[in-house]
Amino acid sequence: MAELTADQVQALIRAGVPMAEDIDLRIDHLDADKAVARVPFHGKLVRPGGTVSGPTIMSLADAAMYAVVLGRLGRVEMAVTANLNINFLAKPKPVDLVAEARILRLSRRQAVCEVQLYSQGGEGELVAHVTGTYALPL
Amino acid sequence: MAELTADQVQALIRAGVPMAEDIDLRIDHLDADKAVARVPFHGKLVRPGGTVSGPTIMSLADAAMYAVVLGRLGRVEMAVTANLNINFLAKPKPVDLVAEARILRLSRRQAVCEVQLYSQGGEGELVAHVTGTYALPL
Amino acid sequence: MAELTADQVQALIRAGVPMAEDIDLRIDHLDADKAVARVPFHGKLVRPGGTVSGPTIMSLADAAMYAVVLGRLGRVEMAVTANLNINFLAKPKPVDLVAEARILRLSRRQAVCEVQLYSQGGEGELVAHVTGTYALPL
Amino acid sequence: MAELTADQVQALIRAGVPMAEDIDLRIDHLDADKAVARVPFHGKLVRPGGTVSGPTIMSLADAAMYAVVLGRLGRVEMAVTANLNINFLAKPKPVDLVAEARILRLSRRQAVCEVQLYSQGGEGELVAHVTGTYALPL
Repeated sequence: MAELTADQVQALIRAGVPMAEDIDLRIDHLDADKAVARVPFHGKLVRPGGTVSGPTIMSLADAAMYAVVLGRLGRVEMAVTANLNINFLAKPKPVDLVAEARILRLSRRQAVCEVQLYSQGGEGELVAHVTGTYALPL
Repeated sequence: MAELTADQVQALIRAGVPMAEDIDLRIDHLDADKAVARVPFHGKLVRPGGTVSGPTIMSLADAAMYAVVLGRLGRVEMAVTANLNINFLAKPKPVDLVAEARILRLSRRQAVCEVQLYSQGGEGELVAHVTGTYALPL
Repeated sequence: MAELTADQVQALIRAGVPMAEDIDLRIDHLDADKAVARVPFHGKLVRPGGTVSGPTIMSLADAAMYAVVLGRLGRVEMAVTANLNINFLAKPKPVDLVAEARILRLSRRQAVCEVQLYSQGGEGELVAHVTGTYALPL
Repeated sequence: MAELTADQVQALIRAGVPMAEDIDLRIDHLDADKAVARVPFHGKLVRPGGTVSGPTIMSLADAAMYAVVLGRLGRVEMAVTANLNINFLAKPKPVDLVAEARILRLSRRQAVCEVQLYSQGGEGELVAHVTGTYALPL
């Protein structure tokens, strides 16, 4: 299958999930092993205490998983999230939020992924950790 | 602590999480044991195939958990989601999406909740199932 | 497919998972909608504080999920656990531990199950709550 | 607090969880950042198909998490598992099963850990991936 670029995947996700447009989701990097997605810091995403909200963090993680699946497999528009488990670890800082997704295991029927999320410039301290499963069309 | 009404909790969540405003989140019912939250069906939430998107489903589940915690404990604004696990079970129908949240276990330090999500009018078929933990201020 | 009885499923699980034999796993009830499994209280399962250990609880939950899948589908020996999420909610009492498993969603490729675990005689207070996915042979 | 050695932690876990004795659990390595635990391959742990059973895998992961918490904090016997999420990724090979646990986030109230499990000699292919939370005494 033809490889997809980060820009193509960003456009696909924004076209498919309107919430991705709302949070101004960016795909910064994409290859067969890793996707890096980002949500620019906006006042409108903020919750009390001045941090990015939980739903925004989950949306970003889900998009990053989808991106790494597309990066590995090419255009598989019918891939859908089957399971997502998130641990919120630290309050995000008032800066961009970055998500790095990797595929832990790819089988014919599903892709199990891991996502590490951190505040821009603070790679050492995770904001959240996600594992999730994308079901693939059989 | 003074009890909160469904309308008060709806206002609190919308003030605290701007994404809740975007998805027009409603709290239909609230008591000490259960919260029922709803996202009205809007074209803007749709993903390819005409269904409510995964991030919207997760946002609704998280809001319903927060609501039931507030319904039980009163105003605890510093409660934060520590863990959320979601299984996506069936494609939502193009109607309102409803979430019923209950507290499985309340301790001094946390509330573990369960959320059942279904398309309005289709209580028998779950769209998604969530368990999650809210950390409480000590 | 021929239906399986609780005794047949108990024998299948004990033959397949030696740890089930070690914990003296019982299947008390089985139908197409629900399986009830039980671990008799034994001193050897106890951890400090006199309660059933976490691994025993997880083993019981996994067995109860497998039982309800067999109860619905008949003999599907190649079904394997794909995901299991457990929240430990309360210390088990020094009595038998009971697990009630239900299928939340059955599709061609997987069964998503829920398990409620409680100490015998204390149905009102959950010891643990589990959701899990069994992958089915395609 | 005095540091604990791998041998001391192995003895603590075996004394506390009898199932750990049954599976001949070993702690191969322990420092403040990582614990490596191992279950020697035994016929008695095998399930149909000749692989280590799911309950054994979960027991090993839980023990590895406990070990890394003890490695970081010293003797905290009242630490208990609050949540464990496991994705089973590949059939274990008929060899020893190894678990590497790390702490993702340590706060006053809990430790969130990650465990990677693989068959001895096959670090590149994960058998299972676990995230879990240990609640700490306050």
